[in-house]
Amino acid sequence: MGKVLVFGHKNPDTDTITSAISYAYLKQQLGMDAEAVRLGIVSNETAYALEHFGFEAPRLIEKAAPEAAQVILVDHNEKQQSVDDLSDVQVIEVIDHHRIANFETNDPLYYRAEPVGCTATILNKLYKENGVEIPKNIAGLMLSAIVSDSLLFKSPTFTEEDRRAAEELAAIADVDAREYGLAMLKAGADLSDKSLEDLIALDAKEFVMGNAKVEIAQVNAIDVNDVMNRQAELEALLNDVIAQKGLDLFLFAVTDILNNDSVVLVLGKEAERASSAFNVALDNNTAKLTGVVSRKKQIVPVLTEALK
Amino acid sequence: MGKVLVFGHKNPDTDTITSAISYAYLKQQLGMDAEAVRLGIVSNETAYALEHFGFEAPRLIEKAAPEAAQVILVDHNEKQQSVDDLSDVQVIEVIDHHRIANFETNDPLYYRAEPVGCTATILNKLYKENGVEIPKNIAGLMLSAIVSDSLLFKSPTFTEEDRRAAEELAAIADVDAREYGLAMLKAGADLSDKSLEDLIALDAKEFVMGNAKVEIAQVNAIDVNDVMNRQAELEALLNDVIAQKGLDLFLFAVTDILNNDSVVLVLGKEAERASSAFNVALDNNTAKLTGVVSRKKQIVPVLTEALK
Repeated sequence: MGKVLVFGHKNPDTDTITSAISYAYLKQQLGMDAEAVRLGIVSNETAYALEHFGFEAPRLIEKAAPEAAQVILVDHNEKQQSVDDLSDVQVIEVIDHHRIANFETNDPLYYRAEPVGCTATILNKLYKENGVEIPKNIAGLMLSAIVSDSLLFKSPTFTEEDRRAAEELAAIADVDAREYGLAMLKAGADLSDKSLEDLIALDAKEFVMGNAKVEIAQVNAIDVNDVMNRQAELEALLNDVIAQKGLDLFLFAVTDILNNDSVVLVLGKEAERASSAFNVALDNNTAKLTGVVSRKKQIVPVLTEALK
Repeated sequence: MGKVLVFGHKNPDTDTITSAISYAYLKQQLGMDAEAVRLGIVSNETAYALEHFGFEAPRLIEKAAPEAAQVILVDHNEKQQSVDDLSDVQVIEVIDHHRIANFETNDPLYYRAEPVGCTATILNKLYKENGVEIPKNIAGLMLSAIVSDSLLFKSPTFTEEDRRAAEELAAIADVDAREYGLAMLKAGADLSDKSLEDLIALDAKEFVMGNAKVEIAQVNAIDVNDVMNRQAELEALLNDVIAQKGLDLFLFAVTDILNNDSVVLVLGKEAERASSAFNVALDNNTAKLTGVVSRKKQIVPVLTEALK
């Protein structure tokens, strides 16, 4: 068996980057020649976590097939979110916590998905099931993933299992989860060095819903007006992306990490169907979604149902 | 949470029926109102196992949505192999050991697939992970599933994990695995009460490979000539199915359970591509595939690659 690449989705977030590192380490302990890699730029939030626990970012790859015949996907499964040449390699494992769609294999594989808030929570189980001890600095990365995906334990995706995993990991990492977590989120919500182009691409995911091609991008902010004050420029950029990719809908969500609401900017020919799905009227293409912080649990299922 | 139906694939085999029973029992112990049901007639082999360990066959259903909002799939995931109204219910869990294809959800779920020979081997782990003891008669059913899927431990799909599970389950069930297993396989290979219509439908599965619609049926026999002596009648029936369902390929495999080879009858417009994929020439639409006993590991991947 040659080298196996382990990676998360494009536009990587903290769970995707840290899960690639944490699972590659576990597989190495079990004798596999596994290497964590990434498919895009590292966010400020992730960079904070990596530096805090003494890691370099994994190596960036454009394609997988030139260097490996087999890959492991973490934190995603939909092919449009994965490496471009996914169909040229064999997926031997998937560890994920999202819906399953646009995913297909020729052969049986190990697929472990659980409806929890974070891939790291599943990895915490897999370390136990395989009897491998989690190193202190990897526990710190895994805790960072849970903090990130749950917006410091407040998202509706955050389950009892995530809570237990976060407690265990904070103890191993020997950090105060709330103090460290808030510092990490603030580092991620510091948008001062980001262009608008960066913001709409940083955490963007594509979906196919019914016959509609949909992109949903999300950015965390301390003050949503830092972003929304530049709505005209934003719209021009989003409309370019819509034209370029032939999208039917682009939903751009700016999430207020202190108050746990999101303001969304909704463009494309399915904008009306999208906003009615949330029972809100668009005012100048925008709406406030009260209490909505989770793309996976509060946005994707609603749109999927509306567009099917 | 209302009742949850637990079922395997259409044209159920022993793993599918016994896994529905075994997993529904586990979920009941964990507090879920789970009921095992089935999507088709029970084979002679499965009937032998059920009777031996004191079970009735699960209830037959045509549709799921009229009686449950949520379902659990065992031993399959491809929608054309599942209940007809699958899109009207929510799949909350899948426990499987096949490739993943034509499967999609709106929401995150628990999905546990492992590249082992039998669903029962995964269920054996899940009982342990959940700290639930396997009752003696359920262990007997789970052992039956491993015997069936591995043709008494001889199929290339049979892994070290399956071997360990079979040993553990035989001990709990307190049976001699080889003696019991051979008796069960022979009960299943007794085709004397079956019409040809039964034979081609008993263990038939549909697949989409590339743009081709493919059906692969498999039947176990002590003497393949019991079936192949009636080739003309068989071809007429298979051609009817091909026309009815608009298939591009029907591969009917008769597997010699004592010598571990299969004779295949291959019809449809992709028949030539199918036979060349196996490096055999069709003689009067048939060929012998030496050492081939596993649809999943030795037939499906070869055809998927050839037709993509």
